[in-house]
Amino acid sequence: MGKQTANAPAPAGPFQPPYYSVVFSGTRTEGDHGYGATAERMEELVASVPGFLGADSARTPGGLGITVAYFRDLDAIKAWRDDPEHREARKRGREEWFEQYVVHIGKVERSYGHG
Amino acid sequence: MGKQTANAPAPAGPFQPPYYSVVFSGTRTEGDHGYGATAERMEELVASVPGFLGADSARTPGGLGITVAYFRDLDAIKAWRDDPEHREARKRGREEWFEQYVVHIGKVERSYGHG
Repeated sequence: MGKQTANAPAPAGPFQPPYYSVVFSGTRTEGDHGYGATAERMEELVASVPGFLGADSARTPGGLGITVAYFRDLDAIKAWRDDPEHREARKRGREEWFEQYVVHIGKVERSYGHG
Repeated sequence: MGKQTANAPAPAGPFQPPYYSVVFSGTRTEGDHGYGATAERMEELVASVPGFLGADSARTPGGLGITVAYFRDLDAIKAWRDDPEHREARKRGREEWFEQYVVHIGKVERSYGHG
């Protein structure tokens, strides 16, 4: 097997089911407009939510960005949804940063890893 | 709102719940080793599985790659898992292409979009 790409973060999980996955897939508008700093702040903030398990993010340059966040239960998702800073970030996301996005909230029944 | 980044594909969905999401997050080994061609073939092949709804893919250069595929039910996931070409691709994925990966299979209870 080859050598791992430098600086690649390990994928989150697997975790013990049941838990929840929140998939956010979106295309950005042009320019940063403060998105990068807010995204970093959200990453820090979500980690303090009780029941947050982990998250994965990837973005194809000029293409789709996907973030998947994992939570122990729906209460944890609700706590994150109701966070005032996160609410404000979502508002800017709709108005400024994202051309289009789709969210899928699922209950994870099976999870496994390799490597 | 800014102009959409050129060539960015639209995110898949939202779809009518319930349905299933299969999140695959992984870090690649170095080099291509035939991965690109196989990934394109798998994208073509999965679209022919009855109950396949759509998929999103993103990869941070040198970082994490995430693919999320959406299926109507567990039978559709099983049909895809049992496809012989897909089995062979997964074997090469474990042996050659991925340093590490995690899979999360969830039943989507809620989905919404913007834009």
